[in-house]
Amino acid sequence: MKFVKNYKCTLCGREYSKEEKIYTCPECGEKGILDVEYDYEALKSVITPAYFEDNKDFSMWRYKYIMSVEDESLDETLKVGWTPLYRSKLLADKLGLRELYIKDEGLNPTASLKDRASAVAVIKAKEARIDTIACSSTGNAASSLAGNAARLGLSTVIFVPERAPQGKLAQLLIYGAKVISVKGDYRETFELSKKAIEHWGWYNRNAAINPHLVEGKKTVAMEIAEQLKWQVPDWVVVSVGDGCTIGGVYKGFHDLCEIGLIERVPKILGVQAEGCCPFYTAYKENEPLRPTKENTIADSISVGVPRNPVKAMNAVSRSDGTWITVSDDAILEAMKLLGSTEGIFGEPAGVAGLAGLVKAIDENIISCDESVSIIVTGNGLKDVKNALAAVKAPITCEPDINKLKKHLGDLQ
Amino acid sequence: MKFVKNYKCTLCGREYSKEEKIYTCPECGEKGILDVEYDYEALKSVITPAYFEDNKDFSMWRYKYIMSVEDESLDETLKVGWTPLYRSKLLADKLGLRELYIKDEGLNPTASLKDRASAVAVIKAKEARIDTIACSSTGNAASSLAGNAARLGLSTVIFVPERAPQGKLAQLLIYGAKVISVKGDYRETFELSKKAIEHWGWYNRNAAINPHLVEGKKTVAMEIAEQLKWQVPDWVVVSVGDGCTIGGVYKGFHDLCEIGLIERVPKILGVQAEGCCPFYTAYKENEPLRPTKENTIADSISVGVPRNPVKAMNAVSRSDGTWITVSDDAILEAMKLLGSTEGIFGEPAGVAGLAGLVKAIDENIISCDESVSIIVTGNGLKDVKNALAAVKAPITCEPDINKLKKHLGDLQ
Repeated sequence: MKFVKNYKCTLCGREYSKEEKIYTCPECGEKGILDVEYDYEALKSVITPAYFEDNKDFSMWRYKYIMSVEDESLDETLKVGWTPLYRSKLLADKLGLRELYIKDEGLNPTASLKDRASAVAVIKAKEARIDTIACSSTGNAASSLAGNAARLGLSTVIFVPERAPQGKLAQLLIYGAKVISVKGDYRETFELSKKAIEHWGWYNRNAAINPHLVEGKKTVAMEIAEQLKWQVPDWVVVSVGDGCTIGGVYKGFHDLCEIGLIERVPKILGVQAEGCCPFYTAYKENEPLRPTKENTIADSISVGVPRNPVKAMNAVSRSDGTWITVSDDAILEAMKLLGSTEGIFGEPAGVAGLAGLVKAIDENIISCDESVSIIVTGNGLKDVKNALAAVKAPITCEPDINKLKKHLGDLQ
Repeated sequence: MKFVKNYKCTLCGREYSKEEKIYTCPECGEKGILDVEYDYEALKSVITPAYFEDNKDFSMWRYKYIMSVEDESLDETLKVGWTPLYRSKLLADKLGLRELYIKDEGLNPTASLKDRASAVAVIKAKEARIDTIACSSTGNAASSLAGNAARLGLSTVIFVPERAPQGKLAQLLIYGAKVISVKGDYRETFELSKKAIEHWGWYNRNAAINPHLVEGKKTVAMEIAEQLKWQVPDWVVVSVGDGCTIGGVYKGFHDLCEIGLIERVPKILGVQAEGCCPFYTAYKENEPLRPTKENTIADSISVGVPRNPVKAMNAVSRSDGTWITVSDDAILEAMKLLGSTEGIFGEPAGVAGLAGLVKAIDENIISCDESVSIIVTGNGLKDVKNALAAVKAPITCEPDINKLKKHLGDLQ
């Protein structure tokens, strides 16, 4: 917390001391989500390219001085972050893109980008000497919290909507979380968790409420910048549900700009599913966000009432980016495309970014001579059912070479 | 290949030039599996602790000079290896062990240790200018091959037994492999793949046949040694199916010994499932391996006719280790234990090692003042069905705080 200057409300702009034990702005209430502000001038002398050259911590904690955590138990956590950023060859060729990078966040310990937020949550709970953490989640935030908490010996209470995929549910239960499967949608799940957290006094890992979590998520952007030797791409593409991840992506680049490590924030393309696109609609209609239905296979971004509207809308507008929507069919196509050209298996929300990129090229939003990085936010193994819906069944064959020859007759 | 000296048959001891295009010993046939031998004297001056200090390649290719690959396309592969080795606190305490390390191989790109072999396979296929690779597999070798091949633009033909879990099947299909689901057990699947590979002339990634694959797998042992600053633990515990992985583990430590980077090979505990334990039985009865039934939930080690008996048996005997079996129930218990104390979710075969460790402590094979490293060979997300069988169902609740209070009445 050494370089944290204060908290600032994203709604009213009021500033609060970093010593305050608050989640949101006391004046604005729950919607007054806070931003963590740093002493960028002081950081400039510490956080230099040379600092990173010598830094042997290949996890998200390599950015700990630009994060709102104390350096006490960081070495006890799961190894979150420093996931690979691949330069694409086959996929870039197929899309006609000059320069394409793929950040595979499915290789985090619990197989999604959410580990970056959850690792911070468990550290903050330890700092606050609270031994139970709770959250509501469409799945990944929950499983990442349960896994990261288990490693530090903390208990978790997790609220999931009934529709959570089996893979995510299995993770939660194996990590030993107390799981409440709520007979309702994400909004009802969130509301129940809020009441329960108030009642039982648990640490709150609901990402939009807790300002520290975006500070964890932003490390994905910092890694992209560092892995590209501080030359950021023209565009960064990310799928959007609650709005916290895209908020984090913007914040990461923003902080690096303020410190002077990069020259600009890339344009951010926010991708939503057609069946659940409150941000896209608000942007197109230039109206405030309205609750929408939740009707997409991409469960991680199926959020009809996003909890972090301000940070998400700002991420796109301040970066001079834009919003786009993709159909479920396009998401399944993108899943196959990414798998077969790059060997990366993303969950539906994880590959929605690629589906958005395909459409953005098609609509001339992104031009082929621009450089792009997509973020694959979660591993496809979390949702096998949808993956199997995307592909044809295998060839079934008796253990008999002659029968196989008939099946494969056309092969060389 | 610079430091490769020759190939040596593990059966008859004949040596072959590294220029020979052979998989197995021409004299002994398919059972004459080859070992890759290196010029250890020459390596001693190159592969020093200082070499690794300066090495910024945090993938398995950091060991490329002790591997049988050319350094041509290594930077094009998926990022395999350099998975975390965690020092355990909670689990070690629970087991009463002084020093326990956990190598999480589920964080490889396709979520299992098999990526280490498959990355080598695709490199060797490229070297041989062959554009289609085939293998038979219980699942992980296949999915890792399909993923690694996709990234390099190679085609794959995969033979899986019908019982392969959905997660692994989904991976294969998403990676664009041609999948042949064989109506039979692993032995029949293997035999069909062999005939097909002969017929169509594909590159052979069957791990026991191809001597280079163990050279990929051995990097897991090298990483354990390096991550422990070249002070190896007393024991390394690994689950065993075909025998290739345990063979690789031994080979990795063996090579490091020859180069002088470590002083000894750790004792290796080979863990098999009770329902499929040909190695354990052969060891106990001091008889050659006999085909056995394949009756365990741990599909990755459900191999009734292991293809690499010599390397596997040697790994245990030469390291002064031993064999042990575990029940399916013990495997499911280990899955929960690992998840809830360490936040690591392993597939059944992946946690069989831990189940073996628990039993080995219980039977005084491993004493509590010895240091141990277990290898979690694959991610639990690959087999969600079995994971869900290991745990209790979640609490189902209406979105109503009063109803929740009744459910959680006993909570603080």
